[in-house]
Amino acid sequence: MSLLDEILSQPEILANTLKAQRARAEDIAAAVHSAAPRYIFLAARGTSDNAGRYANYLFGAHNRLPVALAAPSLFTLYRQPPRLEGALVVGISQSGESPDIVGVLEEARLQGCPTLAITNAPQSPLARVADRVFPIMAGEEKAVAATKTYTAELLAIAMLSASLEGNPARWNELARVPAWAARALADYETTLGRVERYRYMERCVVLGRGYNYATAFEWALKLKELTYVTAEPLSSADFRHGPIAVVEPGFPVAVIAPSGKVYPEIESLLHRLREAEAECIVVSDNPEALALAQTPLPLPPGIPEWLSPLVSILPAQVFSYGLTRAKGFNTEHPRGLKKVTKTR
Amino acid sequence: MSLLDEILSQPEILANTLKAQRARAEDIAAAVHSAAPRYIFLAARGTSDNAGRYANYLFGAHNRLPVALAAPSLFTLYRQPPRLEGALVVGISQSGESPDIVGVLEEARLQGCPTLAITNAPQSPLARVADRVFPIMAGEEKAVAATKTYTAELLAIAMLSASLEGNPARWNELARVPAWAARALADYETTLGRVERYRYMERCVVLGRGYNYATAFEWALKLKELTYVTAEPLSSADFRHGPIAVVEPGFPVAVIAPSGKVYPEIESLLHRLREAEAECIVVSDNPEALALAQTPLPLPPGIPEWLSPLVSILPAQVFSYGLTRAKGFNTEHPRGLKKVTKTR
Repeated sequence: MSLLDEILSQPEILANTLKAQRARAEDIAAAVHSAAPRYIFLAARGTSDNAGRYANYLFGAHNRLPVALAAPSLFTLYRQPPRLEGALVVGISQSGESPDIVGVLEEARLQGCPTLAITNAPQSPLARVADRVFPIMAGEEKAVAATKTYTAELLAIAMLSASLEGNPARWNELARVPAWAARALADYETTLGRVERYRYMERCVVLGRGYNYATAFEWALKLKELTYVTAEPLSSADFRHGPIAVVEPGFPVAVIAPSGKVYPEIESLLHRLREAEAECIVVSDNPEALALAQTPLPLPPGIPEWLSPLVSILPAQVFSYGLTRAKGFNTEHPRGLKKVTKTR
Repeated sequence: MSLLDEILSQPEILANTLKAQRARAEDIAAAVHSAAPRYIFLAARGTSDNAGRYANYLFGAHNRLPVALAAPSLFTLYRQPPRLEGALVVGISQSGESPDIVGVLEEARLQGCPTLAITNAPQSPLARVADRVFPIMAGEEKAVAATKTYTAELLAIAMLSASLEGNPARWNELARVPAWAARALADYETTLGRVERYRYMERCVVLGRGYNYATAFEWALKLKELTYVTAEPLSSADFRHGPIAVVEPGFPVAVIAPSGKVYPEIESLLHRLREAEAECIVVSDNPEALALAQTPLPLPPGIPEWLSPLVSILPAQVFSYGLTRAKGFNTEHPRGLKKVTKTR
């Protein structure tokens, strides 16, 4: 399976995992309810850390659970882990093999905290150390750049949140995700045509906020891994606190702008970027936002904001894949990377 | 006072704050001990958020307190704040005026959580809403790019951590910070000469790990604000999980490499970067790390790792200031920025 095949396979994977793992999500939620954690302590790296950024917003907004993103080096290099009493400790890792993430869950276990692994490898070291495991069922990922395991991790988080909330309306919305994903990918060849314009782009910033702060990070990571563009992800609010100074005429800014509560702030920023003559690449379902873009990447309408990250990353993945080809780089094996990175 | 004056004034400010605020730090620590929080929930933006990254490691390692960095939009745009029971809620802001940071502390107060403001403006909205205030006493900061308020915020965090730990050895180490800072700045003119080489640098990555993850973020922010270089901060571990692919011969990588527990991992990465023919700008007290750099930025020897961020940012600030001048930009008023940014 090539990277493009893996990108295009996501609607089917999402449909399968949604169907197969609902009961497991509800079992895990029941266990979490009895443990009654004060907060979630979450450890992840790379693409999985971006899934953790989604969890930060979703568990906060829908489940009122604060999320602390772990500093794994406290557990490994420094060997001075914090006290985790009151925390549910969650590790997210496609391979389940990174020693630093496994180390956080081992320490949590020693401290008697409940632990959960979200992984594509249910026989991995991470899965073995965790009390509970959510297998994301994305199938083997052959391309080095993660795509289908990212959206499957987001889905796992969304299913856990819906189970914790116990609101059937959430499941009705979740059921529509595979169809939205299919629509977002249907016209992928148009996107592949649009990337030619960025053949010589060397740097850019990628902006998102709220639920789609995660999307900005994940898009930027794909651009760095695959196209070697220096792509920096930022929240639109942090961007206004300093980095906006980098924008000069022609400076490329990728913006995740789906409808929702953060949309007005993002649209006002888009106007400001156009006044500064920035080059705007915009992922949105909103015609006004798309009209402000030199390169519009449309999303299907009607996606609730909390689920928009599962869909808004898809045109960004296609964009990154296409730009890799336009620049003449290897889409399957980026230079300097291995599929499983074992950091301590 | 110009930006350079503000940079050079830091040893004196650190000495003053250290002397004047020890009793207050100990009072705040006593109050925190009685509240016995399970974790710290911390809200900040921009430079102050980088100070929060330092707090994440320091409170974790020395005080065993996990730190959750707030997603302010949950409090403002989404109006769906998490339950903060068990948290000490800390806001860090130079001006104390950003509505989103004030909003997090207002919600914490409504929920009955203890709150602390670390600010340069003890009469600000943030200070007024907090139970306790740590005034960082950096004096008015005139340059738009924050320098002295950053190190004063780091000092406040270090003083609070030492007070919470109740270990007199920490205070003996803290007492030496102003002298180390003065030594790190003594030879600033050499650094100003070395920046010429980067006159046409347009992008770079900035690496640090552990305590100096914060330093990487703050250096990158200064470069973006002042020199308009697309400078992306990353932990050296996250860098290995994908972004390392961007490195080609000549690609500039700035590395924070002081002695300490993360040093061996950073040195091995430096060797890998040199094999890839990267351009390395290295802040370190270690002669081997400095010898691996095209541009070495030396630190004085003997600084304990937990205090190294207060000193290692200083040559980075001088570098950023010098590069701003070399590129012919305005050091006091970067384009597109105001001193106080009010995001929601």
